[in-house]
Amino acid sequence: MACETMQLAEYIVAGSRGLLNDSAVLNMAQEALLDGAYSHVIELDDIERTAYLHPGIAPISAALAAYSINPAVSEEDFLRAIVVGYEVGIRVGRAVNPSHYRLWHTSGTAGAFAAAAASAVILGLTVEQTAWALGNAGTEAAGLWQFNPDGALTKPYHIGMAAVHGLLAAMAAQEGLTGAHRILEGDQGFLAAMSTDPRPEALVEGLGDASPAIWGISRKRWASCRFTHPPIDAVLEARKEGAAETFERAVVETFDTAIRVAGHRDPKTPQEAKFSIAYCCALAWIKGGAAVDGFNAEQNRSDPFFEEVFSRIEVIENSRYSALMPQFMPASIITNPRAGGSCHPMPHLYCYPLRI
Amino acid sequence: MACETMQLAEYIVAGSRGLLNDSAVLNMAQEALLDGAYSHVIELDDIERTAYLHPGIAPISAALAAYSINPAVSEEDFLRAIVVGYEVGIRVGRAVNPSHYRLWHTSGTAGAFAAAAASAVILGLTVEQTAWALGNAGTEAAGLWQFNPDGALTKPYHIGMAAVHGLLAAMAAQEGLTGAHRILEGDQGFLAAMSTDPRPEALVEGLGDASPAIWGISRKRWASCRFTHPPIDAVLEARKEGAAETFERAVVETFDTAIRVAGHRDPKTPQEAKFSIAYCCALAWIKGGAAVDGFNAEQNRSDPFFEEVFSRIEVIENSRYSALMPQFMPASIITNPRAGGSCHPMPHLYCYPLRI
Repeated sequence: MACETMQLAEYIVAGSRGLLNDSAVLNMAQEALLDGAYSHVIELDDIERTAYLHPGIAPISAALAAYSINPAVSEEDFLRAIVVGYEVGIRVGRAVNPSHYRLWHTSGTAGAFAAAAASAVILGLTVEQTAWALGNAGTEAAGLWQFNPDGALTKPYHIGMAAVHGLLAAMAAQEGLTGAHRILEGDQGFLAAMSTDPRPEALVEGLGDASPAIWGISRKRWASCRFTHPPIDAVLEARKEGAAETFERAVVETFDTAIRVAGHRDPKTPQEAKFSIAYCCALAWIKGGAAVDGFNAEQNRSDPFFEEVFSRIEVIENSRYSALMPQFMPASIITNPRAGGSCHPMPHLYCYPLRI
Repeated sequence: MACETMQLAEYIVAGSRGLLNDSAVLNMAQEALLDGAYSHVIELDDIERTAYLHPGIAPISAALAAYSINPAVSEEDFLRAIVVGYEVGIRVGRAVNPSHYRLWHTSGTAGAFAAAAASAVILGLTVEQTAWALGNAGTEAAGLWQFNPDGALTKPYHIGMAAVHGLLAAMAAQEGLTGAHRILEGDQGFLAAMSTDPRPEALVEGLGDASPAIWGISRKRWASCRFTHPPIDAVLEARKEGAAETFERAVVETFDTAIRVAGHRDPKTPQEAKFSIAYCCALAWIKGGAAVDGFNAEQNRSDPFFEEVFSRIEVIENSRYSALMPQFMPASIITNPRAGGSCHPMPHLYCYPLRI
């Protein structure tokens, strides 16, 4: 039986160079923690749909810290480390999702593997050491969605800790700390523990193809949860016809995961506002977008006009849309439905691809 | 609906004093990491059966680091912090087990909550801050058993990281990092994610009783996995009758969890030997015990006499014993079964209680 983790580890090392590893500074974990957390605060991340992942934040944060440990790394190898981090994180995310995402924040969990992979390349680990690094980053991979109803600050903390887990596991592996070889596919490993629909073959299928996973990412246009974007875009379409007016009532329909993750009905903080489809739609209607400066929830919600628009927006699931996730992330808006108002569907994903 | 996490947090703070919190040194995380990891290396931990937990290692490691941050804490409050850490870790372990233990290393997962609780007392957090600390330690609670078949060094690393997660979450809470209020009992919380038989009522039942959970712990007599102890004790009983002789064959029967966790048949490292019932039984037969210096597996297994005794020991499950876990941890040994050899059962738990 093939050992998927070892295959993945061999790929990482094959994609890297033999780098010197002469210094290891545990304090770099602090750099990784802070970079990782800061990177996710404003919710303007890149995205990989099929992995349910913001792929860049954890491995780039770890790579920057690893670079402080090994500043002799070449520019090419630094970039290679990031590409490898994306590759690993995205593959791990695909292998555990969609079920994983019901409980777990993939950017924290798969992010730990991605951070380990990027660190391994920059620190010049061997194949065996890289497998150990993946093993110990993976055994610490964590991040539950339970913070979300509280609008707590945990979300960026997950990314900081993912970067720490990846970096520390790689540094420790270099010093000889062994780890599980089959952390991904083993009977008591990551897929078994955190997925009800694991797909281990996704870890290695087509590895090394001409088209690495990083080319499939997209970027965010708005500074809010990715699942608020199709509703925002639907609002902007509707607004073209009636920007000067408002509506008595608007019904936004979208897929179930979006409502579960971004269904805040009474957002009071920026964090909650970024996870409130209704808030984002009101903001988009009034401002024509949802930029970083639009998420001062306290200020906006004390504005009577904002509050009125906000309170008139209803968000409901459309089960046909739910069935299309994650290949498409549909949303639509119907304004003034009782007056026979027009429907503005966004049947396709607005994914703002980096590369078309 | 009562919020179990808040109740638990209120208990922690009620059990603590209002302490000053004037300094916070992130580097203390390193102290917690190293203390936590070192504390679990020789496998001579205390134990709480019903929580499937080594309750002391994570909270005491975190408490020592928290003490470095707040050296003004009184001796009484320091001890209170440790008692509270035991209370929380044991309750969390009970609430997720036994199913949790099939995949997760409770001393790493529940240990993070315990470490947060102990740190919260020493840093003098408010009830709200303590709930945040539990939330963010809990969202990072991790530790998969997958390292075990490799005999990897991950096991003590889990404890180091549990101490780090608890300490960092408490320090961050003091600075205002909010966290999930319902990390334990919430729909996307720790119990939902990591247990198929969650028992949230175990978190708070009888809180504050005259008999805190710490009185229920036991200590280890031998420097190996707890599940190897009943077989070792059975060997020692059998040995009383035949210490001078050896056996042609010995059959050790015990419960399923012991075999899953401590079933190594070809241990080559100290870590593997500590998780090998057959190795521990051979050691006990030859040496009359299983002390720290007995786990140089390479040396012992190159000794022909040791290897012969070792190779003659068969370890099998007895389903009646499995049904008695965790209230009892039975084991028995039959030496020379074909010659009508005698059976030496250990039907009851040898738990070496701290307090009888």
